[in-house]
Amino acid sequence: MTVADLTEDELLARIFPLLPRGAATLLGPGDDAAVVAVPDGRMVVSTDVLVEGRHFRRDWSTGHDVGWRAAMQNLADIAAMGGRPTSLVVTLVAPSDLPVDWVTGLSAGLAAACDPHGVGVVGGDLSGGDLIVVSVTVHGELDGRAPVLRSGAREGDVVAHAGVRGWSAAGLALLAAGRPEIAPELVRAYLRPDPPLAAGVAAGRAGATSMLDLSDGLLRDAGRVARASGVVLDLDPVAVSFATDLVALTDAATALGALAEDWVLAGGEDHGLLATFPAGVVLPAPFRAVGRVRAVGSAGPGVLVGGRTPATASPGWDHFAR
Amino acid sequence: MTVADLTEDELLARIFPLLPRGAATLLGPGDDAAVVAVPDGRMVVSTDVLVEGRHFRRDWSTGHDVGWRAAMQNLADIAAMGGRPTSLVVTLVAPSDLPVDWVTGLSAGLAAACDPHGVGVVGGDLSGGDLIVVSVTVHGELDGRAPVLRSGAREGDVVAHAGVRGWSAAGLALLAAGRPEIAPELVRAYLRPDPPLAAGVAAGRAGATSMLDLSDGLLRDAGRVARASGVVLDLDPVAVSFATDLVALTDAATALGALAEDWVLAGGEDHGLLATFPAGVVLPAPFRAVGRVRAVGSAGPGVLVGGRTPATASPGWDHFAR
Repeated sequence: MTVADLTEDELLARIFPLLPRGAATLLGPGDDAAVVAVPDGRMVVSTDVLVEGRHFRRDWSTGHDVGWRAAMQNLADIAAMGGRPTSLVVTLVAPSDLPVDWVTGLSAGLAAACDPHGVGVVGGDLSGGDLIVVSVTVHGELDGRAPVLRSGAREGDVVAHAGVRGWSAAGLALLAAGRPEIAPELVRAYLRPDPPLAAGVAAGRAGATSMLDLSDGLLRDAGRVARASGVVLDLDPVAVSFATDLVALTDAATALGALAEDWVLAGGEDHGLLATFPAGVVLPAPFRAVGRVRAVGSAGPGVLVGGRTPATASPGWDHFAR
Repeated sequence: MTVADLTEDELLARIFPLLPRGAATLLGPGDDAAVVAVPDGRMVVSTDVLVEGRHFRRDWSTGHDVGWRAAMQNLADIAAMGGRPTSLVVTLVAPSDLPVDWVTGLSAGLAAACDPHGVGVVGGDLSGGDLIVVSVTVHGELDGRAPVLRSGAREGDVVAHAGVRGWSAAGLALLAAGRPEIAPELVRAYLRPDPPLAAGVAAGRAGATSMLDLSDGLLRDAGRVARASGVVLDLDPVAVSFATDLVALTDAATALGALAEDWVLAGGEDHGLLATFPAGVVLPAPFRAVGRVRAVGSAGPGVLVGGRTPATASPGWDHFAR
């Protein structure tokens, strides 16, 4: 059965019961708009879009995988502000031949990612269209704290990271090579990333001076902090700071003739958190120190690895590059 | 120049200066998330998606038109809750051959719709993809009032309408027939609907018992109020209650051999507001009385026009109908 076999109301009737209500939801789906509690008086909001053939392939990702990932990469954006996510809204463009099971799977995946964090799926919109497009907007709460921006890193701060590095890029490479069996845990990290969301709030409470979600790769995203803050992020050698990740990536790198270090430095979509803390702060778990913030030199803001300019060829991702 | 000729950062650098900041924006685009003031402690949120070939055609609508319409239909959802919109976030899927001017036009259209209402465009996301998809999420504020739901209509209430009726459907029909010159004001109502947003807050203040945004047509949307409230909406004959609209639609109906009354009853996307008020309330402008709420009879909740079941064949729109 495909979505064309149901009316919109019939499809919604299958989706609504799957969606988590959320702890802060005052009025859920079904009216012109939803109402969500924001006792702090400020809401944090971010949005992301996933496009079939660009961000996922139907033969690699189930609907559940796409729902999970769409939710999680948005939830990570709230965590990266030091916020606590409260609610999502979702739009779905669905080709008429899309199985209804894919759509209910998407809903279940959104729910599986959101429910443990008390996050509700409070609204949405459906449309037909020739390819699948999932757009998610996430909202969060700061509980009285200041948001943690990209621009607050200061000379002498400790650079710290929470989450896995390079796993998602390696998992995607294994899928592309048709060899997912080499390291199923890496493939799973691509299909259903599970970043340490609670670390965002913990970093905010611990006085993090800057933070962001590593969606485009360590070097590229660290460069954003460096430019926004007007500093240099001097990262420790990867063999030291990401030793555990390098071990986890070894089999995949060997099988594919790739460099695990490149995945660690340039791989995107793990959605770990990169933050800076004043020297002497006890880092909240699971943050680990991975470098230092230096004053900007004659070369301007930027990122060093082991004191040197990194040589990796492809530092990130550009959606419109030919 | 197309979007493929620019990096994502270059494209964003052209978009950002066009976007309105908004009166409630505490932190605008550029970080992982934006921060918006919600002093009431509750936010109202809704989302809508527009798909090329379904909701607009590039040969009929400019980027500016699509931006205006995407914003306005979302703003109307907040108005329909009795709310005051504060902010939007937007995702755009853009084919690589899309002219950069279309994207900056979209941004300018969003801004033109939002800025007069103090609404900011506070975030977004871009992706490549084979067709244009614009997804907007809107947020609003209730200023201490209860949201106006679809479920509150009570026997004896006055049914009232604010905005134009049937103009958008007629404008679309003129474009489809290649005869937009018959009634440019109707075509404009389709391309850039301009619903009376302030009437939503006014209705909330005046004690409206129910309200919704007429996006799918008078009969279909009135039926939603009837079912949600468990009542019958007994609408006055269209020749009386929508006489002005029927006059405005006459030339187009004559030219196309269509019935103006069908556009009034079943035409969508005008985004006027349908509300119910307790009898005796002075209706806030520009609401006009168009019927009465009756107790539900043996036929169950529903809509009557002039005391009879309406005969219009196509009462609405279904996105997945073949």
